[in-house]
Amino acid sequence: MAAGVACGLKTSGGLDLAIVQNVGPLQHAASVFTSNRCKANPVLWSEQVMADGIVSAIVLNSGGANCYTGSRGFQTTHATAESVAERLEISAGDVLVCSTGLIGEQLDLDKLTAGVWDATRAITMDGGAGEAAGLDAATAIMTTDTKPKQAKHRSADGWTIGGMAKGAGMLAPGLATMLVVITTDAVLEPAELDQALRSATRVTFDRLDSDGCMSTNDTVSLLASGASGATPDLPDFIAALTEVCRDLTLQLQADAEGAAHDVAIEVVGASSEDDAVEVARAVSRSNLFKAAVFGNDPNWGRVLAAVGTTGAAFDPYGIDVAMNGVQVCTAGEPDQPRELVDLAPRAVHVLIDLHAGEAGATIWTNDLTHDYVHENSAYAS
Amino acid sequence: MAAGVACGLKTSGGLDLAIVQNVGPLQHAASVFTSNRCKANPVLWSEQVMADGIVSAIVLNSGGANCYTGSRGFQTTHATAESVAERLEISAGDVLVCSTGLIGEQLDLDKLTAGVWDATRAITMDGGAGEAAGLDAATAIMTTDTKPKQAKHRSADGWTIGGMAKGAGMLAPGLATMLVVITTDAVLEPAELDQALRSATRVTFDRLDSDGCMSTNDTVSLLASGASGATPDLPDFIAALTEVCRDLTLQLQADAEGAAHDVAIEVVGASSEDDAVEVARAVSRSNLFKAAVFGNDPNWGRVLAAVGTTGAAFDPYGIDVAMNGVQVCTAGEPDQPRELVDLAPRAVHVLIDLHAGEAGATIWTNDLTHDYVHENSAYAS
Repeated sequence: MAAGVACGLKTSGGLDLAIVQNVGPLQHAASVFTSNRCKANPVLWSEQVMADGIVSAIVLNSGGANCYTGSRGFQTTHATAESVAERLEISAGDVLVCSTGLIGEQLDLDKLTAGVWDATRAITMDGGAGEAAGLDAATAIMTTDTKPKQAKHRSADGWTIGGMAKGAGMLAPGLATMLVVITTDAVLEPAELDQALRSATRVTFDRLDSDGCMSTNDTVSLLASGASGATPDLPDFIAALTEVCRDLTLQLQADAEGAAHDVAIEVVGASSEDDAVEVARAVSRSNLFKAAVFGNDPNWGRVLAAVGTTGAAFDPYGIDVAMNGVQVCTAGEPDQPRELVDLAPRAVHVLIDLHAGEAGATIWTNDLTHDYVHENSAYAS
Repeated sequence: MAAGVACGLKTSGGLDLAIVQNVGPLQHAASVFTSNRCKANPVLWSEQVMADGIVSAIVLNSGGANCYTGSRGFQTTHATAESVAERLEISAGDVLVCSTGLIGEQLDLDKLTAGVWDATRAITMDGGAGEAAGLDAATAIMTTDTKPKQAKHRSADGWTIGGMAKGAGMLAPGLATMLVVITTDAVLEPAELDQALRSATRVTFDRLDSDGCMSTNDTVSLLASGASGATPDLPDFIAALTEVCRDLTLQLQADAEGAAHDVAIEVVGASSEDDAVEVARAVSRSNLFKAAVFGNDPNWGRVLAAVGTTGAAFDPYGIDVAMNGVQVCTAGEPDQPRELVDLAPRAVHVLIDLHAGEAGATIWTNDLTHDYVHENSAYAS
């Protein structure tokens, strides 16, 4: 069950508070949280809630991150959970809280409480199971996102997975990412959900690095109701969950603040997956490379300059680089003329072959644009 | 002795080749090179030249980095050194070569050779000892720099230090930085020069992180002629050399590509100097923080989100942050209103007190601006 309402936290007056309730019969859950050491109050609260693997509901708000707001901010989070619990007749200790928005400002508890009242009424009185209710919830968690992000998977065995996500800036998760809620009606134990969620996020959200900035509020939660009565094979479930997470990840990338290109940095021939991730992430964090992509300039020297800052195993004169299918560098020397590379399409593929092993990984990033600078300099967010 | 000439490597027709000759009596030298593992051909050559601590001359060109250009590129570097050696009647094995410009393009050896001819004639026929000659050399090594950068120090004991630098983008040295040539007439052994240079660069060029991108060509060289006949106390010399390096560092920061603010990130109360550097560098690499500074937005939440990505010792609720003298965050909670912070001046000072010890460090960086994106997207460099 889901609902999204407007309670006045966003100055725009848009939807800004969402509740997702798991009506069972099971209330199993798993979450991954930001690895940022400056954790927001809702993350500190939710880590406690997750300790027993039981979650009845999640309340999420945009319009303020409730981070670096001290004990008063923690009390606001606690009171929000209590309010949800009272209205839905559940335990506050089973209510996750997620917040997103400006860091270092107190949230207005009166507005939050009014929003909880409206959202819980929408769930209990109007029913919160339809597509419209899910879309309202996905819309209410948006900040600088321009569109809601949802994904679903329906298995042949009778169970389903659905998910929603927000995130457009401060988009470089370290362990979890952004705000994501995924639900399933499969029958799974909390430990299985935890294994599945960590397996899926490791190769999806954790491989998104839009702007190199890790949030203080990142939370990905997976709720299982068991309502289908179907118990999936765990590998099948992990594969489906990974696909849902990948779908949401690519939607986040496509809507990243100010982006003009969606860039996939694929590293192959690495001696380990860790090496491949390190190399791809270094390239994804090169402002010079990202600005060149914005200018449709296939400046592969900036790719290799970034590769050279890593500790990965490679021989500088053993590296190949291709951009959108054109092999511009072979064994560390110029190959095809860079003028042959067409970077006009939004999708850009950079393929780096380290010739040092059999492992590989892809990091998804965006270019560095005037709109990114404008959006992050003209408005506080 | 110095000279700067135009040999056609820059499409603008500007000065693009410089030679600095040490006419002795000593020809002692030390260099620090980029720690980027993708080293340019002139760096690979110059590392060999530096092995014996003896350098007679340095030839530097803009208009091309000669990096990722393979064996043909190395031959170009070698031939350039041979050409200088022949003209100045010195050994090629005592000629450092530095190049800067686009990565992944071959340099035109004919143009380089003609430039060497002109520059060596300027030194041997016209004399290359005046201020005009030094300014020509400092101008010839510029790329996207808008002005030449020079600094000098004259000791009471009769010895002097002079230096020139270039660097405006790919400006985040890992060990050395950019192209810098420093000369002194002090009497010092190569080992003393090496110790002094590493001591000075560690707290000056290595603390500059304008755009997080480490170059493949960074080289800082120090040449000592002994012409003054004065042997300095080494600590005095290191202090003076550090001051010259700091002066050049701040000139590089002030001329960084597209920058609208010069930002000093000062971390105090750290448990170690390494911790202080790690925290300050993390903030200096946050695009969100840098864009906020461009927008004159004192978004201290973005500062703390970056601090939280580090492994430094601190308690998230023990941190203070001040921006341009206004304490916006005390013990991890909002203090003075952010509206009181005036970020209109070009100089911005961010003071972070970790309350975890007695150590400190400052990283110098710049904001992220439309001009930075424009300069690095509209032109290949």
